[in-house]
Amino acid sequence: MSRYLRNTWYPLTWSSNVERSLKRHTVIEEDIVVYRKVNGEVAALSDACPHRLAPLSIGRLIGDSIECGYHGMTFDCSGQCEKIPGQRRIPSNLQVRSYPVTENMGMVWIWMGDEEKADKSKVFDLKEFHDPKYSYVLGDALHVDANYLNLADNLCDPSHVAFVHQSTLSNKEHGEVPVHHERLEDRVVTWRWINDSPLIPVFKGLVDFGGNVDRWHYYHYFAPSVAMIDFGSAPTGTGAEQGNRDNCIQMFACHFITPIDERTCIQHWLCVKNIPSDPEKDAKLLAGLRMAFDEDKAVLQAIQKNEDKLVDFKRVRIAIDVSTVKMRQMLQEMIEEEQLESIPFTEVV
Amino acid sequence: MSRYLRNTWYPLTWSSNVERSLKRHTVIEEDIVVYRKVNGEVAALSDACPHRLAPLSIGRLIGDSIECGYHGMTFDCSGQCEKIPGQRRIPSNLQVRSYPVTENMGMVWIWMGDEEKADKSKVFDLKEFHDPKYSYVLGDALHVDANYLNLADNLCDPSHVAFVHQSTLSNKEHGEVPVHHERLEDRVVTWRWINDSPLIPVFKGLVDFGGNVDRWHYYHYFAPSVAMIDFGSAPTGTGAEQGNRDNCIQMFACHFITPIDERTCIQHWLCVKNIPSDPEKDAKLLAGLRMAFDEDKAVLQAIQKNEDKLVDFKRVRIAIDVSTVKMRQMLQEMIEEEQLESIPFTEVV
Amino acid sequence: MSRYLRNTWYPLTWSSNVERSLKRHTVIEEDIVVYRKVNGEVAALSDACPHRLAPLSIGRLIGDSIECGYHGMTFDCSGQCEKIPGQRRIPSNLQVRSYPVTENMGMVWIWMGDEEKADKSKVFDLKEFHDPKYSYVLGDALHVDANYLNLADNLCDPSHVAFVHQSTLSNKEHGEVPVHHERLEDRVVTWRWINDSPLIPVFKGLVDFGGNVDRWHYYHYFAPSVAMIDFGSAPTGTGAEQGNRDNCIQMFACHFITPIDERTCIQHWLCVKNIPSDPEKDAKLLAGLRMAFDEDKAVLQAIQKNEDKLVDFKRVRIAIDVSTVKMRQMLQEMIEEEQLESIPFTEVV
Repeated sequence: MSRYLRNTWYPLTWSSNVERSLKRHTVIEEDIVVYRKVNGEVAALSDACPHRLAPLSIGRLIGDSIECGYHGMTFDCSGQCEKIPGQRRIPSNLQVRSYPVTENMGMVWIWMGDEEKADKSKVFDLKEFHDPKYSYVLGDALHVDANYLNLADNLCDPSHVAFVHQSTLSNKEHGEVPVHHERLEDRVVTWRWINDSPLIPVFKGLVDFGGNVDRWHYYHYFAPSVAMIDFGSAPTGTGAEQGNRDNCIQMFACHFITPIDERTCIQHWLCVKNIPSDPEKDAKLLAGLRMAFDEDKAVLQAIQKNEDKLVDFKRVRIAIDVSTVKMRQMLQEMIEEEQLESIPFTEVV
Repeated sequence: MSRYLRNTWYPLTWSSNVERSLKRHTVIEEDIVVYRKVNGEVAALSDACPHRLAPLSIGRLIGDSIECGYHGMTFDCSGQCEKIPGQRRIPSNLQVRSYPVTENMGMVWIWMGDEEKADKSKVFDLKEFHDPKYSYVLGDALHVDANYLNLADNLCDPSHVAFVHQSTLSNKEHGEVPVHHERLEDRVVTWRWINDSPLIPVFKGLVDFGGNVDRWHYYHYFAPSVAMIDFGSAPTGTGAEQGNRDNCIQMFACHFITPIDERTCIQHWLCVKNIPSDPEKDAKLLAGLRMAFDEDKAVLQAIQKNEDKLVDFKRVRIAIDVSTVKMRQMLQEMIEEEQLESIPFTEVV
Repeated sequence: MSRYLRNTWYPLTWSSNVERSLKRHTVIEEDIVVYRKVNGEVAALSDACPHRLAPLSIGRLIGDSIECGYHGMTFDCSGQCEKIPGQRRIPSNLQVRSYPVTENMGMVWIWMGDEEKADKSKVFDLKEFHDPKYSYVLGDALHVDANYLNLADNLCDPSHVAFVHQSTLSNKEHGEVPVHHERLEDRVVTWRWINDSPLIPVFKGLVDFGGNVDRWHYYHYFAPSVAMIDFGSAPTGTGAEQGNRDNCIQMFACHFITPIDERTCIQHWLCVKNIPSDPEKDAKLLAGLRMAFDEDKAVLQAIQKNEDKLVDFKRVRIAIDVSTVKMRQMLQEMIEEEQLESIPFTEVV
C-alpha cells in the first residue's frame, strides 16, 4: 500500500520560483520538471526522457515544449512526444506523464493522482490572504531532513510550544494549559486559550496593549500537507474567548509541506496578519518566525536520526497526542479510501 | 552471471602514471596494486595481503617485491609469497593474484581473466598512433559516475552530437542526417556523412578550406572498452565520401574505458590527427575536446541518477538505437561465450 | 547471537568530558545521554524519549533530571518518568533505560548488560596509575573507522611494530625476535624481549643509559576492551629479563576501546611511566605515541575498507597470529557463556 495520498493538491514551490526555464522538483519520490509556459501558466512533466532516462530538466525549453538534451526527442507541455530525431513515425502513446498544476496563495500546487479528479477549486485557500484588510509575509522553503508526518504532528501540537519555543512563541509557564481538539469533515482542529498572560516575544514591537492579554492558538490541519495556525491576542478582559476580538492582533501561519521522500520534506511557510505591511516590523516578524521554525527543524531532524536507528522501538502514547493521532488516522483513512476507489469494479456473480 | 567480460585487455591507466611506487587502481570492482619493476615493466597484484587484508599499496616496494605494511609479509611480482615474519616455512601456494599487463598507445592494459588466454598481440592498437605522419595529444582520465555501458552507448551514437555538443563537435541543423551501422567480427561500426556544411567548431583554427566541407564520423566500438572515432572533413566537392581524402583534416579520438563498478568508470581519451604537433593548436584542440567530453559526462551522470531511482522503468527504443543495441548484444554474447568456456567439460554418457 | 559482550565495563569517555550538561555517546550501537549529577556522580540514560524518540541529549538538565526538549516529559537519573505535561497519571513502568557507570583511571566506564551483575570493583585498574612513584599522561580519544576487534588484534600483536612503527616504537631489524603468549584466567598475555639493542625512538631524550639496552614488551589483553602494554628497557647486562629492573625505564600504555558499531570504535589511550612528570618531556612522549597510534589507525582503516568489500575472503593464518586467535577465542567464549546464562531456566521433566 502506498504511503502517500495521491489525489490531493501538494504544494510544489513558490510561484516566484517558476520561470521560463526548466527546474527539477521532487514530490512523493517522483522527479518532476517544472516551467512556465509562454502564456504564463505552469507546466509539470515527469523528469525522465522515456528513451534513455536523461532528465528533461537538463534539456531545452523551446516554446512550451522540452527538447531532451541527449538526443533531441521533444515533448509538448501535455507530455506528448512531438519529435523523434532520426525517424518520422511518432507513436501517439509515446508520452511522459504530465501533472495538473494550479496556483494560489503565492504557491504552485501539483496533483499527483488521477488527473480526472483534479479540481482546481479545491486547492487550499485562506480568504484573508486576499483580503486588503490583512497583509502577509512570505517565509522560507525550509528543507527538513525528517518524515513529513513528523512535521505534520508538530503542526497540530500546541504542547511542544512551551518547550521548543520559549524564546519566540511561548514561555514555559504555559505547558499545562488544557488543549482541545475536534475532527471536522476536512481537517483536525486543535486549540487552546492562554488567558491573562504577557504578550509572546514575536508579538512584541508589533502591538502594545498596555498589559496582559488573552491568547489563542487554533491549529487547523488539512491532511496531508497543509497546516494553518490561527493565533492571536487581545487585551485581557475584553472577551476575546467569548468571541469579541475587535481589538486584537491575529496571525495565520500557513505551512505547506511537500513530502520529498520518507526522510525529507520541504516546509514552505507564510504568515497572514491583521496589521499593515511595514518593512521594519515585517522583517522582525519574519526573523522571529524563522527562529521558531528552525527550532522545530532541529528537533525533527534529531528525531529522524533516532527513528532510522530504532526501527522497532515502541513509542508510548500520552494524553497530548490526541490531535496527532486523529490527524494520522484521518490521513490513513484517506489513503485507504483512495486505494479502494482505484480497484476496478468487478461484478460479483 | 558476471556482468563484466573478463578475458579482455582493459585499459588501466596512463603509462606515465606508473612509477617506482605503489598505487591502487580498481577495475571491474577488483582493487589492484600497480607499480613499475626495476626493469621498467609494469606489475599488477591483487591489493590485499591474504593475511589480514591490509592493502599492499600501503606497503613498501623493495626491488620488485612488496612488503606488507602491517606485518612484513613479502610477495614477489608474480604474487608468490617469499617471506613471512616469524616463521620459516612458506607455503608454495601462498600467493596473491597477479594480473597480466602490457603497454600500448601510452596506456597500461590489464587482463582480468584467464592468464593463459592473455595474448599481448591482441591489445587494441591504432597504427596511425605510431605513424610519424600523424601526431597525437593525450587527453584526460575522466572520472564518470555512470555505468560504463552508458558511456559506451554514447561512443557509438552519432545522434547525440547535434544536441549535446552544439558548441564543439556539431551544430544542431544536422540532427537528421542518416546514420549507418554494421557489426563486424570484432566491432560495431556506426557512421554518417554530413556534406556541404561549415567546419565544426573544434576544427576551426586548425585548417581553413575556404568554404564548406564534407564531414564524416565513423564510430568503431570494440566491446567492452575501446571506442575509436574516425572523424574528419574535406572540401566539399573533392569526393571525400567516394574515397578521395588527400586534402583533409582527420582525427581519431580514442576512448579507453575502465569500468570501476556498476556506477563508475574512467574514460581515458587521446586524439591522433593528421596535422603536426603545435603547442598552441594542440592546447586549443585539447580544450575543445575536453569541453565536449565534459558535456557527455554531465548528461551521463544525470542519467545514472535517474536509473538508480527508476529501476523498473521501461525505456522506449527508437530508430537511432540500432548501433547501441548491436554493441550491447555483441558484448552480451562475448560474456556468455566466455562463461560457457569456463564450465568444465563433462562427457555425457 | 549478539556480536558484543554485554556484561562488561566498557570505557565510555574521559571523566573530564562529563560535565553538568547533556552529551550523546554511542556504545555497541546504543545511543546514551551522559551527564554529571549535582553530587558529582555520572548518570547515563538511553538517549531517546519514549514518547516521540527525541534525543534526551537535546533536552534540558534540571537538577539530576532531564526534561525532554520536545514536550517536556521529565526523567530522573534512574530513568523513571516523573512528569508528563498535560496529564497527572504517570505509569510507574514508564522509564528509559539507565546504565550503571563508574569512574577509574580518568575514565567513565559503562555497564551495557544485566544491571544486577554490575560490580564496580571489577572495573579495570592499573595500580601504578595511583602510585606516586609513577606519573602519567592522558592521550587522545582516537576515532578509528575500523571494527574494534581489528584494533584489539593490533594491541596484542608485537609483530606489527617493526613494520608499522619504524620511526617511533621500533626499528625494522627486530621483526624476527620470538614472541611468547599465554592465556590466563582474565587475559591473553603476549611478550617478547629484544636484548642488546639501541634505545627505541620514543625513549630517546627521556633516559640515557649510555649504551644498548634489553627491551621488553608485554601485551596484556583483557577482552573485550582493555589493552595494557608494559614496555621498558634496562641497560644490557644488568639482568632485566631475569627480573632485575631496578635501573630501567618502564611504561604502561593503556588502551581503552569503545566499540561504536561494526565499523567504528574509539581508542582512548594513556601512558603511565616510572619517570616524573615534566611538561617538556611529557609533550615529547605524547607526540611520539600519538604518531605511533595514528600509524596504526591508518593501517586499520585501510583494512576495514578492504574487509567491507572482500566479504568472503579467506584469510591465511600464520605463526604470529597465535595471540590474536586466542584473544578472539576468549571473547567468543565469554559472549557464548553470557548468552547461555541469559536463557531462562526450565526444569526438564
